[in-house]
Amino acid sequence: MSAEIKGLNEECGVFGIWGHHEAPSVTYFGLHSLQHRGQEGAGICVTDGEKIDGHRNLGLLADVFKNGELDQLHGDGAIGHVRYATAGGKTLSNVQPMLFHFQDSSLALAHNGNLINARTLRRKLEREGAIFQSSSDTEVLAHLIQRGISDDFYDNLKAALCQVKGGFAYVLLTEDAMICALDPSGFRPLSIGKIGDAYVVASETCAFDVVGAEFVRDVEPGEMIVFDKDGMHIDHYRTDTQHAICSMEYVYFARPDSNIAGVNVHTARKRMGVSLAQEAPVEADMVIGVPDSSISAAIGYAEEAQLPYELGLIKNRYVARTFIQPSQELREQGVKMKLSAVSGVVKGKRVVMIDDSIVRGTTSKRIVKLLREAGAAEVHVRIASPPLKYPCFYGIDIQTRRELIAANYTVAEICEQIGADSLEYLSCDGLVEAIGRPFPAEKYGGITMAYFNGDYPTGLYDYEQEYLESLEESSLR
Amino acid sequence: MSAEIKGLNEECGVFGIWGHHEAPSVTYFGLHSLQHRGQEGAGICVTDGEKIDGHRNLGLLADVFKNGELDQLHGDGAIGHVRYATAGGKTLSNVQPMLFHFQDSSLALAHNGNLINARTLRRKLEREGAIFQSSSDTEVLAHLIQRGISDDFYDNLKAALCQVKGGFAYVLLTEDAMICALDPSGFRPLSIGKIGDAYVVASETCAFDVVGAEFVRDVEPGEMIVFDKDGMHIDHYRTDTQHAICSMEYVYFARPDSNIAGVNVHTARKRMGVSLAQEAPVEADMVIGVPDSSISAAIGYAEEAQLPYELGLIKNRYVARTFIQPSQELREQGVKMKLSAVSGVVKGKRVVMIDDSIVRGTTSKRIVKLLREAGAAEVHVRIASPPLKYPCFYGIDIQTRRELIAANYTVAEICEQIGADSLEYLSCDGLVEAIGRPFPAEKYGGITMAYFNGDYPTGLYDYEQEYLESLEESSLR
Amino acid sequence: MSAEIKGLNEECGVFGIWGHHEAPSVTYFGLHSLQHRGQEGAGICVTDGEKIDGHRNLGLLADVFKNGELDQLHGDGAIGHVRYATAGGKTLSNVQPMLFHFQDSSLALAHNGNLINARTLRRKLEREGAIFQSSSDTEVLAHLIQRGISDDFYDNLKAALCQVKGGFAYVLLTEDAMICALDPSGFRPLSIGKIGDAYVVASETCAFDVVGAEFVRDVEPGEMIVFDKDGMHIDHYRTDTQHAICSMEYVYFARPDSNIAGVNVHTARKRMGVSLAQEAPVEADMVIGVPDSSISAAIGYAEEAQLPYELGLIKNRYVARTFIQPSQELREQGVKMKLSAVSGVVKGKRVVMIDDSIVRGTTSKRIVKLLREAGAAEVHVRIASPPLKYPCFYGIDIQTRRELIAANYTVAEICEQIGADSLEYLSCDGLVEAIGRPFPAEKYGGITMAYFNGDYPTGLYDYEQEYLESLEESSLR
Amino acid sequence: MSAEIKGLNEECGVFGIWGHHEAPSVTYFGLHSLQHRGQEGAGICVTDGEKIDGHRNLGLLADVFKNGELDQLHGDGAIGHVRYATAGGKTLSNVQPMLFHFQDSSLALAHNGNLINARTLRRKLEREGAIFQSSSDTEVLAHLIQRGISDDFYDNLKAALCQVKGGFAYVLLTEDAMICALDPSGFRPLSIGKIGDAYVVASETCAFDVVGAEFVRDVEPGEMIVFDKDGMHIDHYRTDTQHAICSMEYVYFARPDSNIAGVNVHTARKRMGVSLAQEAPVEADMVIGVPDSSISAAIGYAEEAQLPYELGLIKNRYVARTFIQPSQELREQGVKMKLSAVSGVVKGKRVVMIDDSIVRGTTSKRIVKLLREAGAAEVHVRIASPPLKYPCFYGIDIQTRRELIAANYTVAEICEQIGADSLEYLSCDGLVEAIGRPFPAEKYGGITMAYFNGDYPTGLYDYEQEYLESLEESSLR
Repeated sequence: MSAEIKGLNEECGVFGIWGHHEAPSVTYFGLHSLQHRGQEGAGICVTDGEKIDGHRNLGLLADVFKNGELDQLHGDGAIGHVRYATAGGKTLSNVQPMLFHFQDSSLALAHNGNLINARTLRRKLEREGAIFQSSSDTEVLAHLIQRGISDDFYDNLKAALCQVKGGFAYVLLTEDAMICALDPSGFRPLSIGKIGDAYVVASETCAFDVVGAEFVRDVEPGEMIVFDKDGMHIDHYRTDTQHAICSMEYVYFARPDSNIAGVNVHTARKRMGVSLAQEAPVEADMVIGVPDSSISAAIGYAEEAQLPYELGLIKNRYVARTFIQPSQELREQGVKMKLSAVSGVVKGKRVVMIDDSIVRGTTSKRIVKLLREAGAAEVHVRIASPPLKYPCFYGIDIQTRRELIAANYTVAEICEQIGADSLEYLSCDGLVEAIGRPFPAEKYGGITMAYFNGDYPTGLYDYEQEYLESLEESSLR
Repeated sequence: MSAEIKGLNEECGVFGIWGHHEAPSVTYFGLHSLQHRGQEGAGICVTDGEKIDGHRNLGLLADVFKNGELDQLHGDGAIGHVRYATAGGKTLSNVQPMLFHFQDSSLALAHNGNLINARTLRRKLEREGAIFQSSSDTEVLAHLIQRGISDDFYDNLKAALCQVKGGFAYVLLTEDAMICALDPSGFRPLSIGKIGDAYVVASETCAFDVVGAEFVRDVEPGEMIVFDKDGMHIDHYRTDTQHAICSMEYVYFARPDSNIAGVNVHTARKRMGVSLAQEAPVEADMVIGVPDSSISAAIGYAEEAQLPYELGLIKNRYVARTFIQPSQELREQGVKMKLSAVSGVVKGKRVVMIDDSIVRGTTSKRIVKLLREAGAAEVHVRIASPPLKYPCFYGIDIQTRRELIAANYTVAEICEQIGADSLEYLSCDGLVEAIGRPFPAEKYGGITMAYFNGDYPTGLYDYEQEYLESLEESSLR
Repeated sequence: MSAEIKGLNEECGVFGIWGHHEAPSVTYFGLHSLQHRGQEGAGICVTDGEKIDGHRNLGLLADVFKNGELDQLHGDGAIGHVRYATAGGKTLSNVQPMLFHFQDSSLALAHNGNLINARTLRRKLEREGAIFQSSSDTEVLAHLIQRGISDDFYDNLKAALCQVKGGFAYVLLTEDAMICALDPSGFRPLSIGKIGDAYVVASETCAFDVVGAEFVRDVEPGEMIVFDKDGMHIDHYRTDTQHAICSMEYVYFARPDSNIAGVNVHTARKRMGVSLAQEAPVEADMVIGVPDSSISAAIGYAEEAQLPYELGLIKNRYVARTFIQPSQELREQGVKMKLSAVSGVVKGKRVVMIDDSIVRGTTSKRIVKLLREAGAAEVHVRIASPPLKYPCFYGIDIQTRRELIAANYTVAEICEQIGADSLEYLSCDGLVEAIGRPFPAEKYGGITMAYFNGDYPTGLYDYEQEYLESLEESSLR
Repeated sequence: MSAEIKGLNEECGVFGIWGHHEAPSVTYFGLHSLQHRGQEGAGICVTDGEKIDGHRNLGLLADVFKNGELDQLHGDGAIGHVRYATAGGKTLSNVQPMLFHFQDSSLALAHNGNLINARTLRRKLEREGAIFQSSSDTEVLAHLIQRGISDDFYDNLKAALCQVKGGFAYVLLTEDAMICALDPSGFRPLSIGKIGDAYVVASETCAFDVVGAEFVRDVEPGEMIVFDKDGMHIDHYRTDTQHAICSMEYVYFARPDSNIAGVNVHTARKRMGVSLAQEAPVEADMVIGVPDSSISAAIGYAEEAQLPYELGLIKNRYVARTFIQPSQELREQGVKMKLSAVSGVVKGKRVVMIDDSIVRGTTSKRIVKLLREAGAAEVHVRIASPPLKYPCFYGIDIQTRRELIAANYTVAEICEQIGADSLEYLSCDGLVEAIGRPFPAEKYGGITMAYFNGDYPTGLYDYEQEYLESLEESSLR
């Protein structure tokens, strides 16, 4: 389902290319394939070796660049960003890449993730006289670099990377190089590819297919990789790292054609559906998925359960562009814009409805209602991931425990609230196995399960206090 | 697949409502669900019983009404239109509804379909002094009405309807009534629903679900139905009618959640896939569908063939909004925007690729190539309809026989051209049976098969000569 | 003063060029110099000998063509129009040039003036089956031509010109020629110029200076002049003509750098000021003019009266672009946007305030108040034209006698209403002499004085009844 | 003449209001009257006592706020800015007011003027780790404040004001107060007014008339004035000050209805014209002024010389909005957009053409040519200020001595270059006396004459070297 329906928002997507004479165009097409990771703003910065120029604005990528802005950008190195606002409000100054002009040089910076000690760092920096131009946590890194004591940019960058905590996949651009760096837990995906002699980096491998690049390798936790005239240079800013890939990338965020840590997302989702069918079977006439992110799991469930997979829910393809909402009266009359239940398909049938997750429960309740109004005889909800009970602090916008229905109600209570005939979730083990333990030697196979079990791989810094309070407030546990 | 990829374009969608105090809003939401039928222009006209106002413009519905234009429209009766340009160029004057102001009254007119004697009628009208404001065939009806000899508007309308030939689903609005009329062959779908006491008409029943309306009945060929303060009045402008519903509505155009002549579109498509699996089985590892219109058939094929159904092709959801195209050089490097093949899914696999139809063959060729580049071991193309050999003159934009690959090459030749390992089409009988003969007593069960077998249900009028020439030119037959 | 302040609106300006390879650009710059004649809409049509294309929209010329629309227009012949809405509402369909596409030809039409029998003609045409696309009176001519019985376009055009009554300066464009025609009374100005071998026509000669053209001659009443590949062809559609040039062009509308019937407008206005000083002297310290149209008369008055001419009123140059209006409360606090009185200049002084005319009196009242608030000791208002008592039906927007203060109150009453210390108008004779009797042998020297004395040079047709009623209603006369 | 013609550009206008419940609207209307001081960008910041919000963009004020942005701004205190780019490029980040968000507070900053040690200060600040978000010199002040060592904001502000050199009229906004400050030489005008209990500050007093405010006093050099809930508090950040008001404000920049240091601008200009007539009489038939800024001087000249004052040059009122320029070919054919000479007025006449100043000479040459082409028999140019020989570093955009024609050629040479029959300038003494020595005890009566005689009232700091080099390069002196 699209972000605005679900209340579960990815933060961003980054893309960069070094050594290609159509760098801005390739970046545009790369970002286009990452648009699902952020629809609130977009931007591209480019260097011709002398200076860095850029353009960014609020809105979808295509709208940001609709008046020929791309033709104004020239150079062989470029980075780009599509944004959803995790931290920092919805204003132009927060749109990335951020571009900083110093006396003798420039720096562009794009960031996917969320820093968990940004508030502390910013307070300290402001006390020392720093002026921030945005409310985004991204800008902190630039100030840390600028205040670095070394004469060497890379030394200052490494020192700065050691100070920021949380989830981050950074792509930076100077006049001389493109640099990427991943946080020590590898929360956010970041991969390297190649088109001829040019290097590309992207949040998801789907971007490589779109721009005709070959996959080279994933960026590893703790790495800082520099691309310059001499090629790729792999370096580390720290080595005490682990793999703790965000499991929600597999469950919900990433495009099904992307591979994360070598695991294809569609395939992982289909296996979640298969496992779910094994763990939570039900007598029914058909399986339907909530479009778009639950389609793969629904197919897997149907195959395993030997039930027909049907298009019982249709999503309006044009909904992203509409700003006109039905009045309260029309809503009560049944006017709906995003999702339709297909009565010709579900009427009189016992339906298994597969969804990837439940956040607040309101959407599930609405869909169950749609299906019943369309004549479904029974609606059995099956969720292809475990109950979401704990917030994410590393870059997904589910930061309030109070809003998570599973943090406050039992499965039986949720089932009743959403009006389903039955409700079952995939188990934690089921999810880990479905993803397939990309790093078998590491905890949970190298993925983060914190949203489901509270087992955060890092300290929580600025969020510690608020997290503890939310645990106490919660009616469950 | 979306219109711009395929080269197969629906012409329009119409919507109307009578007797609802939020008529313009309901029309907006109704049109929104019909946006797939036309993305080039949109408009709404509304009457408050005294006058008719309207707004229309080029572009998507949401863009046309993005600056509060909807708030300017007030009244209990409204009609709307989303447009693809069948006849008449891409200019504002051709966007509908067309609104005509006479001295003492007004008339708004929305049209789905294509007239086949418009050129002749227009020539005659211009000779008599008529001035046309657009190049659209739609305007002809207004001139015929205006020149009617009766004092009664409905008499003149009926006389005018008897003069126009071809495919048409008209919705008209006067200060006193909403009127709809369907051509004598019922080429285009048009249905009636109800919200409380208000009547709605729409090109597809999916619009009823979206606005919370109940289905009442389909408009029958030759009917002219008036909705006014006294309710619905069913009348006929002629009675020598037949059913010849456009089969391509089932195959490609309509939304899967719509019912046409009582047949659910998704269900019909799934049955096409089932029949195709029976008629043209193949040893393979998986079935994939070309999104979006071939998904249902692919599911049907997979179920019948007992093969896994996989997401091997991903469509970029945001492509409709992008006007920036890759340069020739980038295209050669492999930059693509609309469709990605998922190598993580298809690599090393024998793939059955289901598509709803092949028009020029260029798209199929491209998709087969994508799949091979993504590592597919074999690509077996199966088309869920018979070969498209003859143009449509009733409202679909496939008017040149020269462009139809199946009119010029054998199936074996097409298979070679698109680079598939094998290619098979559904048979004509298979299609008719899959749709299910909604009018069993009529030829082909009441659907038009002309695109596949040249059996046009009407004379071709203005197109006769050009059609005959195209038959001679064609290398086949 | 600008149109929106005054309540006195010119209807339009026309421009055309034939035989110049940058015809659309020259038309743009010509229209730009005529922008004061209409700020509500603008358009240009162009022919390359094969077809006619055009672009038009609501708004100022520069806004209408701000997105490169001019680059889309190519050809050697072009006509253009800037519009103020005399007859016909403020909608796109009324913006000119109107472009009509017939089967084998096209016609573009631009009109400055107002027809006085358009309602009658339109009623008749609609009864015969005509459909009008606009509510503008301009379209009538096209229908009359189209219904002409001759095979020759020019014969039909002449016959049509004989049927329309009132004030009109037409410029037409076909694929083969540009045509201009003037009404039999010559109400509206229209002149011919030349740039190299190319002919230009324009509502005012200021356009010739701007595009580098030389003045050739004025179009005479009753003439129809054709410009084609063989040059200029002067013809008449009727010969029973007179000169009755709109005197308000001299008083208020035209640019001071234009010549009308050989008389420079600034010079005429200055002479009005001189005559006014002779007819209505007053003891005072300075003379100020209401910008912009009264500046020339104020200079004339000052020179004749031997008083200093001062800038006591300043107009904000940027006001045309602002759509934000002060709230009622702010207005009461004294917030004003258009005109400021300069207290540094007028404080403690006896001021002669020259204005070109008084329409409703509200503006004069406001300006007198501004001057008093700025400290003026005395404000003596002198109007450089006679009292406006009768409406214009030939193209100026003062059609309601009820609104004309001088039609309802004596000069003494008006003086009191506007709060002036004294008020005097120029006499009718004074105006005629100041303009200088361009056609000495004709009544009033060839100008229309109807607005001041009710002596209309033509019958009033559609307006007759309403005019007679207004005379009866009026409290004066 | 307008800025784009002349090559002489004012930098900015500022406006602020404290204690008015429609503060943003009043600021809008105040800025509207200052639009002549900057057309490249505009913005407004507002505080409700809790936070500061703002909106700014490139373009004219009316365009910046055309989509309801003003309705989003609420609060009792507001500041605004219209900008021409003196220092810092033409990008959004340089548009003011600049708004800085700190952890516990915000600061908005608007600046009229130019700092002459900004480069040095910025270099120093960047070395200490500061990151600048713009290339504007305005931002320097914010960094200086932020790095202040005191706990008291006002102490830090005063210390910062002591560090910046050059011309500045600052208006600042915090959640608690509006503050204004003027440089120690008082180069730029800044006045205080009152509407009821609310205080306003503005670059020119014309803004007070427009918003209905009464003039209270001018801000004096070295003052820092705070407006808060307790009213107005006058303070000084330094006391070793002088008056050195920019004389070009009187000559060219300010609106004629403004008073600067108690001197009305129109009156001063008229006196310049009178003095010029005395110093440089000529036998002629008429006097014309180059619109708009030379009108007052022309009137003065005409009165003193007892010659008729005529409108021999007409400026197109709509030119500010046009982005379409004539092609080279059309320009050569005589297409012009901005200014027309009125042949009906000047033909065969000996003309005295009054202009306020000559910068590069190109404009004067063009106007003389226009007048000759319009038939003027003689053109005698009289300039109502002394020859411009030295650049301004305090806020006017004439920073290159190489571009100043009078720095490189004698008056006789300039006369020949511009093609005039004679050329004379007002003397320095004449200018000082015409302005009227507002501070009689101070040098030049308290105004800056540096542009004419090189007598800069301050050191030149960052510009010293470049200035000395330019002196050497210059062919004169």
